[in-house]
Amino acid sequence: MKLYHWGRAPNPRRVRIYLAEKGIKVPMEDVGDGPTLAADYYKSYPMSTVPMLELDDGTQIGEAMAICRYFESEQPEPPLFGSSSRERGLVEMWERRAYELALTGVAEVLRNTNPAFKDRGLPVYDDVVPQVPDLAARGKWRFAKFLDLLDEQLSSNEFVAGANFSVADITSLCAIDFAKVIKERIPQDKKNVQRWHDSVSARPSASA
Amino acid sequence: MKLYHWGRAPNPRRVRIYLAEKGIKVPMEDVGDGPTLAADYYKSYPMSTVPMLELDDGTQIGEAMAICRYFESEQPEPPLFGSSSRERGLVEMWERRAYELALTGVAEVLRNTNPAFKDRGLPVYDDVVPQVPDLAARGKWRFAKFLDLLDEQLSSNEFVAGANFSVADITSLCAIDFAKVIKERIPQDKKNVQRWHDSVSARPSASA
Repeated sequence: MKLYHWGRAPNPRRVRIYLAEKGIKVPMEDVGDGPTLAADYYKSYPMSTVPMLELDDGTQIGEAMAICRYFESEQPEPPLFGSSSRERGLVEMWERRAYELALTGVAEVLRNTNPAFKDRGLPVYDDVVPQVPDLAARGKWRFAKFLDLLDEQLSSNEFVAGANFSVADITSLCAIDFAKVIKERIPQDKKNVQRWHDSVSARPSASA
Repeated sequence: MKLYHWGRAPNPRRVRIYLAEKGIKVPMEDVGDGPTLAADYYKSYPMSTVPMLELDDGTQIGEAMAICRYFESEQPEPPLFGSSSRERGLVEMWERRAYELALTGVAEVLRNTNPAFKDRGLPVYDDVVPQVPDLAARGKWRFAKFLDLLDEQLSSNEFVAGANFSVADITSLCAIDFAKVIKERIPQDKKNVQRWHDSVSARPSASA
């Protein structure tokens, strides 16, 4: 098995942190090539995204959370998708919000305004997707909306989905750190987010 | 417990089909009010989206797949998120693709071009999110891209994620049926998608 990733991209970092928290070692290959992914990688995996886990039978599992679900099934402990039914629901809810509002929001700004992503408004290899500059404002709005929700949630919870560290923390952390590329940081009035960010950034997994 | 939904919207349908496949009965309330959700609902759930499951302790679980994960934990059989580790990964991958490419693609077209969604380019209650008309072309591109991927996948698989019906089929079905609102249907050359669509539409759950 091999995990294809890219050191500088936010989505593979979600999986690397997950694996570090689990104590799972997987052979990895960085398929970045300057500002894009290597052409050979695109050819072998037409979805054109990282991360991707290739199993020994050739099965390709893409999407960060799909890869984590594979390993959660292989090694359930420590649980990073929740334990009780309620917690499992809340972890999924917050992970999806962190991805859709925060990580996607930042990516919308970057991909639709940075000249390096000209004609690649979505991550595709074999087609032209023009940039939509109006998405810059919308992407910033989404990111800010998530920080509002998260600050409220963290006013009475240690971690994003409640009492335990989970994949919801991982995606939230990766999204907030990714926002550096569009010069968005945690606003000073979001004291709960800042407290949580200091805490999760100090975990050894954060540097994975 | 109560499930808040809206008869005409695609995301609550994902949960209704899931529950029908599981044979789980949950008290439901339709919170649609003409072209939008009822004002009372927005006030009680500021995320402003359906579906939302409220537990007896007051916990609100939003996001369709988070609600399904709650019930999957309560009643694992029949498994709709996969059984083996490999299948669990593939179900998650295809469900995410169906949501992000197809369902979100169709929603992008509808919300950014239909006058009924003026200033509601994203599903929010308490803020103005201007429409971005250029997202119409991108949304159609995403939907078409998903149908390309799906037709290839279904050339050698009975269901979206492999041999078994799963939430990946549910989200794909809801996204494709939702595309009627933007007058996009399954193209004639996508024979595998059409065969699969006929089959899953004939399941009793499809009318849930």
